[in-house]
Amino acid sequence: MTDDVLLHHLDAHYQAMPPVASMHISIAGYDGARLRLHAPLAVHVNDKGCAFGGSLVSLMTLAGWGLVSLQLQAAGLEADVFVADSQVRYLAPLFADLQAEAAFATDADPAAFLDAVRSRGRGRIEVQASVPLPEGGVATVMHARYVAIARR
Amino acid sequence: MTDDVLLHHLDAHYQAMPPVASMHISIAGYDGARLRLHAPLAVHVNDKGCAFGGSLVSLMTLAGWGLVSLQLQAAGLEADVFVADSQVRYLAPLFADLQAEAAFATDADPAAFLDAVRSRGRGRIEVQASVPLPEGGVATVMHARYVAIARR
Repeated sequence: MTDDVLLHHLDAHYQAMPPVASMHISIAGYDGARLRLHAPLAVHVNDKGCAFGGSLVSLMTLAGWGLVSLQLQAAGLEADVFVADSQVRYLAPLFADLQAEAAFATDADPAAFLDAVRSRGRGRIEVQASVPLPEGGVATVMHARYVAIARR
Repeated sequence: MTDDVLLHHLDAHYQAMPPVASMHISIAGYDGARLRLHAPLAVHVNDKGCAFGGSLVSLMTLAGWGLVSLQLQAAGLEADVFVADSQVRYLAPLFADLQAEAAFATDADPAAFLDAVRSRGRGRIEVQASVPLPEGGVATVMHARYVAIARR
């Protein structure tokens, strides 16, 4: 499948989940290694006029989940993807639309991950994600581990 | 203010935030030390028929935020509350309504926290939260730090 078809499938997958559909997210970009998601501030604004923390985590978690899913599909693997754990730091308030970027962690080994899912039916990989600020810097950063379990 | 009035205010605060209103949460209980929130699974279901990870984090984050806000108000302090960082572990899928419980971490010092907000205008406190499974055990656990900044 081409990236366009994969992204179309991913978007359909997102929109099929009620809590995700209510987030009004869209895929903002994918270059084969980095997935970007967008969501409008108006839907995610908190009592202080900036982005709600839960929305920021959700968007980063979904970006990581999408990235792992895309890489599995590009490798021809069918697997369910779960987030196993995450650490999030909230560094600055965001008064603009939310944009989350996810990529594999610098010390992650995507080839070993795909091999593990293929040969043992199960793999684990680390992802880093962040939400940039329009003025530079980041609003939040996340480090998370995802588990993929091959479908039988 | 009595707990009833504080809880009514907290609920109004939650519902005033669009991303929180869309979560259909309700306050399930508060005993002065532990706040419980409820949200229906139907609104938070993912592609695998269980609760979406982002929803679980959001609900635990809101429970912690509510707990800290209630304690400040009970002490007569007006402050904005922010989550600073969080660690979440996803231990088991939840195929039932979401219930998040938040309490101060066992090594937290609520009195010192309130004193810091009162005397220095700023305090920090650790919260632990979890989402129980109906069959026993927990679906997710969170450890988070919140910062309160007194309003001038």
